[in-house]
Amino acid sequence: MISKIIETLQNDCDLAPGSTLLVGVSGGADSVSLAHVLVESGYQIVIAHLNHGLREEAAEDEKFVEKFAEEHGFSFTSAYTDTGDFAEEYSLSIEEAARELRYGFLFEQAEAYMVDAVAVAHTADDQVETVLMHLLRGSGLDGLVGMKAYWESPWHPEIPLVRPMLGVWREEIDAYCQQNGLDTRFDHSNLDTTFFRNRLRQNLIPELTTYNPNIKTLLWQMSDTLSADQDVLENMVNTMLPAMRVEQSEDHVALAAIRFRGLSLGLQRRVLRQVISELRPGLRDVDYGAVERAITIIRQDQQKGQTDLGAGLRLQMEQDRILIVDGEEEIPHPDWPWLEWDDEIGDNFEEIELSEAWQMRLTELSLEQAEQEGFRENTDLFTAYLDAATLSSSLLVRGRQVGDRFQPLGMAGHSQKLADFMINAKIPPRARARLPLVCATDKIVWVPGVRIAHPHRVKENTKSILKISIFRTIKE
Amino acid sequence: MISKIIETLQNDCDLAPGSTLLVGVSGGADSVSLAHVLVESGYQIVIAHLNHGLREEAAEDEKFVEKFAEEHGFSFTSAYTDTGDFAEEYSLSIEEAARELRYGFLFEQAEAYMVDAVAVAHTADDQVETVLMHLLRGSGLDGLVGMKAYWESPWHPEIPLVRPMLGVWREEIDAYCQQNGLDTRFDHSNLDTTFFRNRLRQNLIPELTTYNPNIKTLLWQMSDTLSADQDVLENMVNTMLPAMRVEQSEDHVALAAIRFRGLSLGLQRRVLRQVISELRPGLRDVDYGAVERAITIIRQDQQKGQTDLGAGLRLQMEQDRILIVDGEEEIPHPDWPWLEWDDEIGDNFEEIELSEAWQMRLTELSLEQAEQEGFRENTDLFTAYLDAATLSSSLLVRGRQVGDRFQPLGMAGHSQKLADFMINAKIPPRARARLPLVCATDKIVWVPGVRIAHPHRVKENTKSILKISIFRTIKE
Repeated sequence: MISKIIETLQNDCDLAPGSTLLVGVSGGADSVSLAHVLVESGYQIVIAHLNHGLREEAAEDEKFVEKFAEEHGFSFTSAYTDTGDFAEEYSLSIEEAARELRYGFLFEQAEAYMVDAVAVAHTADDQVETVLMHLLRGSGLDGLVGMKAYWESPWHPEIPLVRPMLGVWREEIDAYCQQNGLDTRFDHSNLDTTFFRNRLRQNLIPELTTYNPNIKTLLWQMSDTLSADQDVLENMVNTMLPAMRVEQSEDHVALAAIRFRGLSLGLQRRVLRQVISELRPGLRDVDYGAVERAITIIRQDQQKGQTDLGAGLRLQMEQDRILIVDGEEEIPHPDWPWLEWDDEIGDNFEEIELSEAWQMRLTELSLEQAEQEGFRENTDLFTAYLDAATLSSSLLVRGRQVGDRFQPLGMAGHSQKLADFMINAKIPPRARARLPLVCATDKIVWVPGVRIAHPHRVKENTKSILKISIFRTIKE
Repeated sequence: MISKIIETLQNDCDLAPGSTLLVGVSGGADSVSLAHVLVESGYQIVIAHLNHGLREEAAEDEKFVEKFAEEHGFSFTSAYTDTGDFAEEYSLSIEEAARELRYGFLFEQAEAYMVDAVAVAHTADDQVETVLMHLLRGSGLDGLVGMKAYWESPWHPEIPLVRPMLGVWREEIDAYCQQNGLDTRFDHSNLDTTFFRNRLRQNLIPELTTYNPNIKTLLWQMSDTLSADQDVLENMVNTMLPAMRVEQSEDHVALAAIRFRGLSLGLQRRVLRQVISELRPGLRDVDYGAVERAITIIRQDQQKGQTDLGAGLRLQMEQDRILIVDGEEEIPHPDWPWLEWDDEIGDNFEEIELSEAWQMRLTELSLEQAEQEGFRENTDLFTAYLDAATLSSSLLVRGRQVGDRFQPLGMAGHSQKLADFMINAKIPPRARARLPLVCATDKIVWVPGVRIAHPHRVKENTKSILKISIFRTIKE
C-alpha cells in the first residue's frame, strides 16, 4: 500500500518525499492512514478538517482529528461552516454545497500554508463507484476514466489536487490501520455518499460480483486503461485546436470549417466538446444528440445552418466558419467594421471612433493629390474615394434600416435592395446589421468592404475628392 | 428504422442500394425484417440459412425461411450441420461451434454468390448486451465499443461483414413486422444467447433500468462515442507502428526501444496489444497485468530483462530492441549470420551456405592482391583477412561450445573466455549461440562481426592471405 501511494505521488504527480501536502482529513480510516503514510514516507503535511455543521458527531470528529494531529505533531487547521445555509443561498443540494465548501476551504488553506498540493484520500473503491456512477448516468471516455490521480482543478490555478490512494483498496487500508494501531472514526463525513452512490455500493456492486467475482479489479483496470487512452486523445485535440480556432472571445469560438471536416468523427466530437467546455467551464454533461446534430450540419458542407447545443449555446455555420456562440450574444466579425451607434459626421472631417477598435478617417483631397496616391489602382475595399461635389455637407454613419436600397458602382439608373446586395456580396450574416454605412441625405454612398454608390463615383470633371478609410487600431 | 439501416449501409459500409448482400436469416423478427427492409430499399439479396441440427424446431425454421424466400422471390441457400459433433471434434463450446459453422457457411456462400457483403441482423439491444458482457468480463476501449457496423472479418479477405441494424431497437423491429404483416418464428436460433447473456438480458438490464430508465440508450451512445475514439487511436497506432517495427517474422516482432519509449502510456499499451494480436490473431483477452509488467521493463531503459506476456508469448529486451517472441522459437537476428549446423570447410575454398540466406565465401590472395583491394583500410567486420600460413588446411565452421576461449587481435600472449568476449563486444544475445565461428584445429580464428584472432593476423612476412567474407544473399 505504501509503495502504491508513493509511486503515484512520484510518477503521476511529480511530488517527491520532502514536498509539502495539505491533507484533507475527515477522521475516517482512508484519510487518517493517508496522513500517516505520507509522514512515514518523508512528506511534510498539514492536516485540514472542515466541520460541515451537518451532524451531531461533527464536533467530535473535529476534536478527534485535532487530537490526531497534536499527537503526531502535525500542523492542523480547521473551520466551521453552515452547509445547510450555503446550500439554500445558492440553491445547491447538500452534497454539492458540502463539496464546494470543502474544496474552497482546502485550497484557501493550501494557499495560506504555501503547500505543493492538496491531497485527498479517495480509494480504489471510490474510483470503481465513480466509474459505475458515470456509466449509469451516461458517459463517454471522459466519465469512464473516473477520477485522476493528478488534477489541475478549478479550485486553484497553481496548486493541484492529488489523489494518491486511487490504487489502494479499502481492505488494504483497514489492514494498515490495524497493523499501525491507528485509531479512526467511523466515516460519517463522506458527503459524496449520496443515496445513489450508496445503492451502488450496497446493492449493485455485490450484484455485479455474482457475474464476475473479479469485477471491482476489472473496472479499476478499465478506468486506468481508458485514462491513458484519453490522455492521447486530449493531447491530439490540444495540439490541433489552436490552428483550427480562427476566432475566440468570452462569448464565442469560431473554427475553420475546412479543417474541422478533415478530422475523423472521434476528433470532431472531441473538438466540439472541448470548445463547449471552454465556453461553459464546469458544464457536466454535453448532450450526445446535440453534438451529433452539430456534426451533421457541419458535414453538409453548406454555408449556413444552425442548431441548439444546449447549455444556452448554439452552433451556427457562417460561410467557411463554424461559430459556437453564447445564444444571447451578438458576435462581431473580426474582419468587418462594427458600429453600435448612429451619428452624423458633420462638417469637421476627422477621425471617428466606431466600436470594437475600428476607426473611420475622412480626408478631403484634390484630384491631383488623389492621383498621386494612386487611387485608381486602389484595391483596399475599406477605403473609398468619392466625388465631394455630389455629397451634402452632413454625412451620416449608421447601421442598415428596413427598406434600405443601394445603387452600387457600375449599376447605372437603378438601385437594388440593400439586403439582397449584402447577401450577394457575401458579407458574413453577423457583420451585416452592424456594418457602418456612410449616407448622404439618407442615400447610402458607401457600403464599406464592398462598393461605393454609382452616383458618387469620381468622374472626369471631379475636382475635389472625399477619401474615407476604415481601419482597426488594435487587434484584440 | 428503414432510414437508420440504409444510412448505416451507405455511410459506414459504403454499400449503396443496388449492392448485393447475403443475409443470414434465422426466421426471427430481426433477420426477417432486415431482409425485407433491404429489398424494399433496392438492395439485391440472397437469403442464407444454416440448420445447426441442435433442436427439434430447426427443420421447421429452415422450411419457414425457405418459404419466406420463395414467396418474396429471393435467392435462397441453406445447409445442415451437426454442431454437436463439430464442437466435440474441436473441443469447442456449443456456442463457439455454432458461431464457427454459421460464419463459415455464410462466407462460403457469399463467395459462391459473389456478393458485396454478408449482412447479419444484430440489433441495438444486442449491442448493449455485448457491451455489458465485455464490461463484466473486463475490457478496455476495444471491448466497450461492442460490435462494429462494418467489419473486415477473419472469415474472408475481401467480403466484409456488415451489421446494418446496430442502431435499431427490438421494439422498432416488432412494430415494423406488425405494420408490414411479416410472419416470423420465435427466435430459438440465437445461439449466442448463452446463460450469461440471458442473465444480462433478463436480470441485469432491468435492474440497471431502476438506476436510470434511459440506460439502454445511454450505453448504446457510449459505445458509439467510444467507437469513434477507438478509430482515432487505431489509426495512430497503424500510422506509427511500421516505423517502429524493425523486425517481423511469423514468430516474432522487434520494436525500436527508443521510439517506443517516446510514446505516451496509452499508445505504448496499444502498440503492445497490437503486436500481440498480430502474433496471436483471434486472441480474446490480452492480460492487463502482463502489459503493465512489460511497460515497466521497457521503461527501465536497461538493455535486458524479460517477461511472460501470456498466450505463449514473451517480451525480451535486447539492447535497443524490444522483442515480442513466440516463447518456444529461436529468432535469428536480421543483422547477424546464422548457423544451424557444424561443418568442415575442407580443402576446396568456395562458397558455403549458412542458414537464413547467409553465405560465406573463402578466397586465397597474395599480399599484393590483398593490398590492391585495400585490405588494411577494410572496415567491414564481416570480412576477415588472415595469414594463410598459420592455418591448417582443414578449417571448421561451428557454433560456440562450452569452454571456448578466444585470443582477439591486439591481445598478445593470452586468451579470454569467448562468452565474456561476446558480451563485451555487444553481440545481441540471440545471435551468440548461432554465430558461425571459423576455427582451425579447434582454435577460433575469427569471430565474424567482431574480430580475428591475434595469432592469425597478417604480418610483415605474410605471403599468402585467406580472405573470408560473410554476406546475405537475399533479404527476407
